[in-house]
Amino acid sequence: MSRDQAFTDAARTLGHSFDGEIKVGGNYVPLVRVGDTIHVSGQVPRVGDDIVVAGRVGGDVTLDRARHAAQVCVMRALALLQRSLGSLEKIRALPKVNVYVQSADGFMQQSEVADGASELLLRVLGPAGAHARTSVGVFRLPKNAAVEVDLVAIAHAD
Amino acid sequence: MSRDQAFTDAARTLGHSFDGEIKVGGNYVPLVRVGDTIHVSGQVPRVGDDIVVAGRVGGDVTLDRARHAAQVCVMRALALLQRSLGSLEKIRALPKVNVYVQSADGFMQQSEVADGASELLLRVLGPAGAHARTSVGVFRLPKNAAVEVDLVAIAHAD
Amino acid sequence: MSRDQAFTDAARTLGHSFDGEIKVGGNYVPLVRVGDTIHVSGQVPRVGDDIVVAGRVGGDVTLDRARHAAQVCVMRALALLQRSLGSLEKIRALPKVNVYVQSADGFMQQSEVADGASELLLRVLGPAGAHARTSVGVFRLPKNAAVEVDLVAIAHAD
Repeated sequence: MSRDQAFTDAARTLGHSFDGEIKVGGNYVPLVRVGDTIHVSGQVPRVGDDIVVAGRVGGDVTLDRARHAAQVCVMRALALLQRSLGSLEKIRALPKVNVYVQSADGFMQQSEVADGASELLLRVLGPAGAHARTSVGVFRLPKNAAVEVDLVAIAHAD
Repeated sequence: MSRDQAFTDAARTLGHSFDGEIKVGGNYVPLVRVGDTIHVSGQVPRVGDDIVVAGRVGGDVTLDRARHAAQVCVMRALALLQRSLGSLEKIRALPKVNVYVQSADGFMQQSEVADGASELLLRVLGPAGAHARTSVGVFRLPKNAAVEVDLVAIAHAD
Repeated sequence: MSRDQAFTDAARTLGHSFDGEIKVGGNYVPLVRVGDTIHVSGQVPRVGDDIVVAGRVGGDVTLDRARHAAQVCVMRALALLQRSLGSLEKIRALPKVNVYVQSADGFMQQSEVADGASELLLRVLGPAGAHARTSVGVFRLPKNAAVEVDLVAIAHAD
């Protein structure tokens, strides 16, 4: 199965469509490529106009929902890369993923939330999706999003 | 208008001078260049010895003041790049900007704070200032700073 | 003294062994190298199975203990680099270090915590350890860790 097919399958499993515009929340750009290095902006779990998982993880948001949120963030990042590169097959490596979890006071399972993002990246990209990762629990995220994810990708040389 | 003139104009508009020493708050360096990639350290809104906007955004700090703080952080980063490169004209691209907002509990407009930084970067650098961005709401920042900004710049090859 | 000797000396001074497996807390990899650039995953102060400094800095964790925690994080990152490269002598530069401090409400000395990390990097790597740095105070860290550190290293070309 190609990565682009795996992406489409993952969207179906998640129950969301990533076909529409991927809106950004301000006057910046979704991604910037310099040479073969691509920085993807922080993605919140937005589908269309809606934040699909909002609130504090460990408070009003369960671990399961937070993992779902992390996967929606990743799908947005992959959708942006797919549109920019033409195909996810053009991704050579994914050296770094950062996962920010809007955490309730007692919540310490940021790694388990981030695992949702990591599993999806490996499922869609295969070995090229292996990444270094940092996950932290932040106090607040834009629009009350439960999770935010950004990443660095490396494209195959043209 | 050159970028360096735009920088000088922006300093005047903000009402601060960035001519003096740009102090760092510890035993690290303001920026590191390897090849054409330059990492600029996290900048707080310090002018001289003073943090000019301190406190929690959405609490004792308004959105307007927080945007001002983000712009002071950006001006410090640009001042460091200008001194290191000789001129801001030497910047080829600005792939990534991270904006950390010291947030009050109910504050969710981190993107609107970060827009202050983004607008200034685009005003001074033009299209080369287009960047990917991540903005998050953190619990605490050094010296009670309202905002902290770091970034990655790419220089034109010598 | 070689960097690898300095590393061994630093481990003795800290009173911890970094000879065993450096476990990661999820389904990601400890580091990814693309070209000469190496991203090291976020490290918490874990030795073996134990988080050696847990809690909120400025609350149940003192500044001194937090600096110790930051140094344990750095030693883990260095141990991973040493195993991957064969020797710390292979490190050409260390352009960026990020320090996340799990902070109590009134704690604003994140830079002083991060100085613990920076001092150790300079002691072990010498001038090659000079780095840009960002330090922020986050609300929560995985497993109640007091500090988390990630970094970007550049290897000498093979």
